[in-house]
Amino acid sequence: MDFQDYFPIWDKLNTIQQNRMLGSLITRKIRKGTIIHSDSMDCTGLLLIQSGQLRAYILSDAGREITIYRLFDMDMCLFSASCMLRSVQFELTIEAEKDTDLWIIPSEIYKKIMEESAPAANYTNELMAARFSDVMWLIEQIMWKSLDKRVAAFLLEEASIEESNILKITHESVANHLGSHREVITRMLRYFQNEGMVRLSRGTIEITDSHKLTELCEE
Amino acid sequence: MDFQDYFPIWDKLNTIQQNRMLGSLITRKIRKGTIIHSDSMDCTGLLLIQSGQLRAYILSDAGREITIYRLFDMDMCLFSASCMLRSVQFELTIEAEKDTDLWIIPSEIYKKIMEESAPAANYTNELMAARFSDVMWLIEQIMWKSLDKRVAAFLLEEASIEESNILKITHESVANHLGSHREVITRMLRYFQNEGMVRLSRGTIEITDSHKLTELCEE
Repeated sequence: MDFQDYFPIWDKLNTIQQNRMLGSLITRKIRKGTIIHSDSMDCTGLLLIQSGQLRAYILSDAGREITIYRLFDMDMCLFSASCMLRSVQFELTIEAEKDTDLWIIPSEIYKKIMEESAPAANYTNELMAARFSDVMWLIEQIMWKSLDKRVAAFLLEEASIEESNILKITHESVANHLGSHREVITRMLRYFQNEGMVRLSRGTIEITDSHKLTELCEE
Repeated sequence: MDFQDYFPIWDKLNTIQQNRMLGSLITRKIRKGTIIHSDSMDCTGLLLIQSGQLRAYILSDAGREITIYRLFDMDMCLFSASCMLRSVQFELTIEAEKDTDLWIIPSEIYKKIMEESAPAANYTNELMAARFSDVMWLIEQIMWKSLDKRVAAFLLEEASIEESNILKITHESVANHLGSHREVITRMLRYFQNEGMVRLSRGTIEITDSHKLTELCEE
């Protein structure tokens, strides 16, 4: 499949806009673990994922992390081009969680198209609204859900993404996703293990009772 | 001043769009304390504030609240018209914190204009990006700031909005803004009083040392 098949409003752009976009497109293979965008970098551009997985997170002054959202095949990353939008006053860091093939649309090219094309601007609106919904979901989780439910939900989400109950993930990494501390997560996972919901070994968390884990989330 | 002076991209709409908007406009006086929009209501429309103050918040199943953002004179409230945007999957409640004069632009009228006008769609984009920045700030506060700093920052914000160090606000209300419990806030405010930063009396919190309060926030 080509870029045209991945970009949802391709048919709504005129030929000039289509050519401008195709002519400026950058194709990249990103290795797992690479930081693609951070606040110390210039405006990276919009990222359209062909295949792979990205994670957008924020960092505290003390170096703590929390995942804001994750993007998968065919998703578009808008905030790596936040310089396009005057009103964006926060900085996300974006890293590849898996080896990722993506296209970069340079910010100034996209901005120009968005300024003249209502369909492009409205598509951008929907993208932002979808990420806004992710963030509102996150606030509800942080505010009203206890950590055991959040850890359980995260493990189930991981299992669903990986299509496996054996998760190759460190306690540190779980903590960074959830904005918690490694020690706290380790304690919680040991409690889960005692309850028969997971089995822990070095670098691996195996879900042994996903039904019980689901019940915990929904309590 | 008329609606035309308040609506930032008025001059970028064509005459048909301008007339459509003016013809559908609803003028409302809202009493302090009124819930203007909630998830049980239909799509209320966009709210353009002539004068007054609105608060957007979310509610937990258990009835706890947390303020997501506040809007003032000349601000536009987008999420009271969230039905316009397919990707919005959360529900805010919006209440008048003060007597408020506002215009309501019906959602279907605004949506139609946004679909055909790139300037209108881009303006909506900037609105959403501004609210997104508010929400990201909130996440950083919740995640990395201790409650004493958040209470101190809230009191200083209130004093700035009210242009007074004597705040007519209940402990319950402070708790609802910050997503906390009244008991917790009362304990914190008594600690502030012992430290000489505030003086408490029935229904009133007086800031007696804003310098010390500011220092606490910035620690």
